[in-house]
Amino acid sequence: MCDYDDELYHEHLPNICGAVREKSKTCCSINTVKRKLPILTWLPEYTLKTLIVDFVAGMTVGLTAVTQAIAYGAVAGLPPVYGLYSSFMGCFLYIIFGSCKDVTVGPTAIISMMVYPHVAGNPDYAVLICFLTGCIVLVLGFLNLGVLVRFISAPVIAGFTLAAALTVGSGQINNLFGIQSKSNEFLKSWINFFGHIQETRLNDALLGCCTLILLLFMRKLKDLKSCGCQSVLKYLSLCRNVLAVIIGILICYLMSREREEMPFRISEQITPGLPPFRAPPFETVDEEGQTVGFSEMISNLGSAVGTIPLLCILEVVSIAKAFSKGKIVDASQEMIALGFCNLFSSFFSSIPITGSFARSAINNASGVKTPLGGAFTGILILLSLAFLTQVFAYLPKATLAAIIISAMLFMVEYDTIAEIWRAKKRDMVPFVFTVLCCLFWSLEYGMLVGVLINALFILSKSMTPQFQLESQKHNGLELCVAELKGNVDYTAAESLNIKTVAFVTEQKTMMEKTVSLVIIKGSNIGSIDSTVALNLVSLRDDLKQLQCELICWNWNMAAAGVVCRLQRKARNMFRFTKNFSELLEMVANGNSKSESDNKNYSNSNGNHSHTGSSPVDQIS
Amino acid sequence: MCDYDDELYHEHLPNICGAVREKSKTCCSINTVKRKLPILTWLPEYTLKTLIVDFVAGMTVGLTAVTQAIAYGAVAGLPPVYGLYSSFMGCFLYIIFGSCKDVTVGPTAIISMMVYPHVAGNPDYAVLICFLTGCIVLVLGFLNLGVLVRFISAPVIAGFTLAAALTVGSGQINNLFGIQSKSNEFLKSWINFFGHIQETRLNDALLGCCTLILLLFMRKLKDLKSCGCQSVLKYLSLCRNVLAVIIGILICYLMSREREEMPFRISEQITPGLPPFRAPPFETVDEEGQTVGFSEMISNLGSAVGTIPLLCILEVVSIAKAFSKGKIVDASQEMIALGFCNLFSSFFSSIPITGSFARSAINNASGVKTPLGGAFTGILILLSLAFLTQVFAYLPKATLAAIIISAMLFMVEYDTIAEIWRAKKRDMVPFVFTVLCCLFWSLEYGMLVGVLINALFILSKSMTPQFQLESQKHNGLELCVAELKGNVDYTAAESLNIKTVAFVTEQKTMMEKTVSLVIIKGSNIGSIDSTVALNLVSLRDDLKQLQCELICWNWNMAAAGVVCRLQRKARNMFRFTKNFSELLEMVANGNSKSESDNKNYSNSNGNHSHTGSSPVDQIS
Repeated sequence: MCDYDDELYHEHLPNICGAVREKSKTCCSINTVKRKLPILTWLPEYTLKTLIVDFVAGMTVGLTAVTQAIAYGAVAGLPPVYGLYSSFMGCFLYIIFGSCKDVTVGPTAIISMMVYPHVAGNPDYAVLICFLTGCIVLVLGFLNLGVLVRFISAPVIAGFTLAAALTVGSGQINNLFGIQSKSNEFLKSWINFFGHIQETRLNDALLGCCTLILLLFMRKLKDLKSCGCQSVLKYLSLCRNVLAVIIGILICYLMSREREEMPFRISEQITPGLPPFRAPPFETVDEEGQTVGFSEMISNLGSAVGTIPLLCILEVVSIAKAFSKGKIVDASQEMIALGFCNLFSSFFSSIPITGSFARSAINNASGVKTPLGGAFTGILILLSLAFLTQVFAYLPKATLAAIIISAMLFMVEYDTIAEIWRAKKRDMVPFVFTVLCCLFWSLEYGMLVGVLINALFILSKSMTPQFQLESQKHNGLELCVAELKGNVDYTAAESLNIKTVAFVTEQKTMMEKTVSLVIIKGSNIGSIDSTVALNLVSLRDDLKQLQCELICWNWNMAAAGVVCRLQRKARNMFRFTKNFSELLEMVANGNSKSESDNKNYSNSNGNHSHTGSSPVDQIS
Repeated sequence: MCDYDDELYHEHLPNICGAVREKSKTCCSINTVKRKLPILTWLPEYTLKTLIVDFVAGMTVGLTAVTQAIAYGAVAGLPPVYGLYSSFMGCFLYIIFGSCKDVTVGPTAIISMMVYPHVAGNPDYAVLICFLTGCIVLVLGFLNLGVLVRFISAPVIAGFTLAAALTVGSGQINNLFGIQSKSNEFLKSWINFFGHIQETRLNDALLGCCTLILLLFMRKLKDLKSCGCQSVLKYLSLCRNVLAVIIGILICYLMSREREEMPFRISEQITPGLPPFRAPPFETVDEEGQTVGFSEMISNLGSAVGTIPLLCILEVVSIAKAFSKGKIVDASQEMIALGFCNLFSSFFSSIPITGSFARSAINNASGVKTPLGGAFTGILILLSLAFLTQVFAYLPKATLAAIIISAMLFMVEYDTIAEIWRAKKRDMVPFVFTVLCCLFWSLEYGMLVGVLINALFILSKSMTPQFQLESQKHNGLELCVAELKGNVDYTAAESLNIKTVAFVTEQKTMMEKTVSLVIIKGSNIGSIDSTVALNLVSLRDDLKQLQCELICWNWNMAAAGVVCRLQRKARNMFRFTKNFSELLEMVANGNSKSESDNKNYSNSNGNHSHTGSSPVDQIS
């Protein structure tokens, strides 16, 4: 036995205790505290000038937030006031924990849409999901699991966004034309629309379509470059939702004065006043008046308990990235912030909240300097809840529908889809599957299907090891020389065996060469696992049946160790020499000699470096 | 624009039409027909001598098959005769389609165990699963999807086998002691055993334990080397199950003559006669007498529709491999054979069948020469069904339990588990999860959990690209030079950006060096996808914010093409030069000059070979 024995026969496991001690040391440093509480970084340098800018930005965002909140409350299938309940607490908490100045936390179209099927009109479920989302996101954030977001590829995100926009937009098509509908799903909405198209209400349809056209036109305003008042136009464009709401309410109010009934379908009455502060509901009462316990509520929520937190994380992290301008986004910190936002928000009857792309963009365009802008957004929403609910009684559903549809039209990443199509056709597979499953099955499962299908690409690639065989002849000896590279996983184990045995058999039958030695070079192997090691041992036995010996030459120590620890006898397969001719000499002189050679070599080469020039290349 | 344009801007998709034409050509060759019908290879050379050997082997296997069939019928929770119904058709069909002479197809412990919870005493479900398994395995075989088995790693197989053996063995512990039990599950069986231990029947317990000890002793017989009659001992050892059955029946028969009731708990009466030939049941009647339709049956079967075929494939392929002696096993052909076996067997009221390890080992040990041995096994089972069912009425349950438990004790791959533990501790994670989930959740989901957890290892590895950065200085220019290698998947995309930006930022803050150029070498990139390309474009923008330029040098054409097709503008990032100094010169002379240089180079180098010596290494 030689010097390698320690390396070959003892697995070096990571020192977990040491790592934990190291971690707990860095955990209490000032830098870490500052990283976990970003407010400590910017608050000491806060000036009055920054305050003014933040105030203007915060108020602008607030006006949009109010209208979107009412709309998204409706999308979630709840009284619209729940949208407002969900909008303020996130703004306040993000100031303390948020690391990106532009992000605005509140209800969003996709999350509301995801909540909808699980809520069935009972707000208790929505508030419970909000609480659970808070807990889960917080724990994942503290465990630094923000990296999980990386499993969601660009095609899957693009597909999900397209499907979500189509679903949310289609869910409003009935409201736009004043048709009654109970569904928010893609197919059902359109079936309802075409089935009841004769029930279209002229007033609603006119208001809805005009508002939609106005919104689309105003969105284009900011791109106009002819006239001089560009900044005014830009501001108008940003406030278009607020304008649409004001116009809608005004028309509705004026028209309703002259008759008895409302001229448009209107949203449910918004309960005036702030939401009560109370613990999230761990039990509820169903439609038939029966009490539903916590575990039954969880089982009713089903997979949403997992997917909604994931989506919340995805949204806030991608928004933070979009506005980070090249700075590194601390995904885990964003998750911690989002977790606290949801957790505390759930005590104010909130639905799950996350970063809103539209409002963050307005925030950014309004020139916000610090997360403090969120405070003014929050205050504005609280004021609306306290004093403006009477006004919202005149808000037509068609106006809300137009606002939501126009937002959805611009949420789809048309460019990205085109880019993916041009760049790599194969990536359209997860995209198409995600879109179809999201539209016709459910948003959350569609996304999971997309993630799984895309993961299959990686897994299927792992089935083909970086492994090429070639036949060589040295001193009358027929050899088969191969090099194995990179990470070799269990999925590749069998293909390794099949390729080698097929090669040797083919040489015998087609070329009439009897290969008596297979040499596998392995200095560039990344890692192997026990399945590969088991297969290597069985490859040796298989080759023995074909009167052929297997030699593993200059393998990376970690990889060789796995095989040697598996079976001590397998040590005989391994040879470590400086170059290829030495190896051949060793083989020619037989095993007894080679063992001592091996020992000499290993003694004179303490560093065991086997990378560098490749002797196989030199002689081939 | 230069010569590369065609390569960069046009994706070369695989020629599907050509591949199909090619495939259809080879499909009708004599070799393919021979491969799909292995009987054509060995039958023409069949001799009388081979027939005699096959006859002896077939009869030996048949005797074991009868006892195992009765046992496994009981394991599946059905009348034991269903085990016999399942045992003959597979033997006949495997002769035609099977490629491995030793494999014996029939009911097995694991599959019977898997069928058990879905059957609930109603054979119609078992027969339907058999039919569906046949269809699915056949289709997968024709689609050449045998490779899917590679996703099940050695630790997962070892864990599953351990858990299945424990479950099946524990399910018989009550029968061994004559205790009544309705459950076959691991926990429930032991709870029932300890809860009703005072109900132990002395007769059954004595017979059961003695039989078990006898079986374990006889298994050891073949290892005895002292005496001369080794081949007799070996044969005795192989026939131990048959002996145990004969002894059990004899004792029971003799003791029952003297009293009114049976001295032991006995199996249900075995209906004499052959099973009727009829189509598999596509509807059934449940316990309450209501008709259950096809779709409801399928939904009752649930995930078993997917997992049982997978397990059948896994068993037959792994057995074929174990006995192939170095020859390559055509997994897809084995699947086709297994598919036909199940398909036709389901017309004779069969439960799902697959290769049996125990019986295949007996077949091999008896020296079988061709798959024709199966014919004699099948005939023996048919004869038993026709004439011996009266005899089996005296078969005690305790004897069957002892046979099953002793089989389970030796099914566990103790050595493999120890080898995995020694070889790589990390691989114990999927093993432990598989065992726990199989034991305490369900066999099929446990296996899926194991497969998924093991796949996570591969996926998590794909998150770290082979990418290392180092800072260099040339002519006063601070550079950051990196090389990207291997397959880069979407999971690695973000880490690429974060690493690069962190490196550049760190150089600025810690070392006070302003890196103005990042060069990523990419001649050894395997493949990239659109998410990586999108991230590369955003990395360029991020670096621009840090006053730093990004250059991709000598990238593999396929990888560069993905980025260039994504955004035409991204073409500016790419440089192709013969060596590093040329690249630096090109950068120093500015972009206008470099573009023409680029053109010249590409014109003079039609072959675009950029591999070979690494200039980065030369200058570092």
